[in-house]
Amino acid sequence: MDSLRKIRIVLIDTSHPGNIGSAARAMKTMGLTDLCLVNPKEFPHPQATSLASNAEDILEQATVVDSVEAAIANCQFVLGTSSRKRYLQWPLIESREGGVEALQHAQLGEQVAILFGNERIGLTNAQLHLCHKHVTIPTSSEHSSLNLAQAVQVLAYECQIAALNHSSDKTKLAAQRVDQVIDIKDPLATDAQMQGLYEHLEEALIHIDFVNPNEKKPPMRRVKRLFQRAQCLDSEVNILRGICKHILKR
Amino acid sequence: MDSLRKIRIVLIDTSHPGNIGSAARAMKTMGLTDLCLVNPKEFPHPQATSLASNAEDILEQATVVDSVEAAIANCQFVLGTSSRKRYLQWPLIESREGGVEALQHAQLGEQVAILFGNERIGLTNAQLHLCHKHVTIPTSSEHSSLNLAQAVQVLAYECQIAALNHSSDKTKLAAQRVDQVIDIKDPLATDAQMQGLYEHLEEALIHIDFVNPNEKKPPMRRVKRLFQRAQCLDSEVNILRGICKHILKR
Repeated sequence: MDSLRKIRIVLIDTSHPGNIGSAARAMKTMGLTDLCLVNPKEFPHPQATSLASNAEDILEQATVVDSVEAAIANCQFVLGTSSRKRYLQWPLIESREGGVEALQHAQLGEQVAILFGNERIGLTNAQLHLCHKHVTIPTSSEHSSLNLAQAVQVLAYECQIAALNHSSDKTKLAAQRVDQVIDIKDPLATDAQMQGLYEHLEEALIHIDFVNPNEKKPPMRRVKRLFQRAQCLDSEVNILRGICKHILKR
Repeated sequence: MDSLRKIRIVLIDTSHPGNIGSAARAMKTMGLTDLCLVNPKEFPHPQATSLASNAEDILEQATVVDSVEAAIANCQFVLGTSSRKRYLQWPLIESREGGVEALQHAQLGEQVAILFGNERIGLTNAQLHLCHKHVTIPTSSEHSSLNLAQAVQVLAYECQIAALNHSSDKTKLAAQRVDQVIDIKDPLATDAQMQGLYEHLEEALIHIDFVNPNEKKPPMRRVKRLFQRAQCLDSEVNILRGICKHILKR
């Protein structure tokens, strides 16, 4: 189950250290090991350690960073958990499919991240925009608010199940579909590459007066959404940056 | 989802009242309402109420009994959760199948129970013998000990998923998924629109000397593949053609 180690759990602005400990335990039971904390309110903390149970090693190895961008810089596939269907045009998948897709990317050797927002507000719009797909856990329509560590448990469980089912025909078929898009010699671009592309592209679009930097709702947001959805390859980023360079030359 | 109300969660000899509260919350998010406590160490308890979040009603309606037999007296199908494969001759199913079977029985109007043992030792041999089947949650081989409330979360989640899969046939689900991605007011672009975009884009890329029309393998092919994969919306084609127009103006 080495692929599971390529799936990073990213907890953002977590308020309660107990949730960090419970999340670590949930990860460990499902074979996940890579925990990244973005601006945790209190960490390390005795409550986190206590609730981690036998998963203290995951807490000890956890990285703490101060931005989501830093957490996913080397990631090629980023899933954002969301309980609300906020972005109608963003690809939205359910947790079962989320586990399968995360594992498929990990099996190609790609670095994967699953983002979980703050306990009270979840992921912000800006954070959701950094993702390739949004993943939702099907719940009762009356009461949809899972505890943070329990949401981590469900997603980690689905990754584990996907890993166990990998040999089954159904998963194989799905894997073939992904293979058609993703060539092992031409991996998906990392988030850092994409952010670099967006800066370059914005510069080019300002240069041709398509984007007005003072505008409130710049079309850049729509353009980014389009490219996020497409999940650009390394080579495609090079092509797009080549276009930007040619635009800026004139 | 009335069938979900026929699935009872039975917590036996629970030590920590917080786990009872978290289990109630987990149940509520997945549409389960029937909680039965067998000899809880402390209940009611402020920590249970606090962790239940919005699921206080489940705690208030919970029944407290002094034997497992009393908890399952009116049940027609009883599942016992076990992390260890202790009874090789007992039917052992995995959590996914457990959710499906529990729901199938509930849909026949039968009363179902899923038993969870004490935090430290799980279900005893005597308790496991009261069950029709044993259900296990697939975990990492190194660390198989889920927190009690998280085990409840996984099983409740599988019941909810089984209910969702049952109530809407596959086509309906697929249609819903497509609806979530595609806004009716902003449909996918037609092929004619896409071909128009590609011509416009090629003209712009020739204009900035990025594309050489005499080249054998022009990068246009790669750019097209990228946009085809993204499945552009009507509004996005307009944005992209706006960019082409601005490039050609200069």
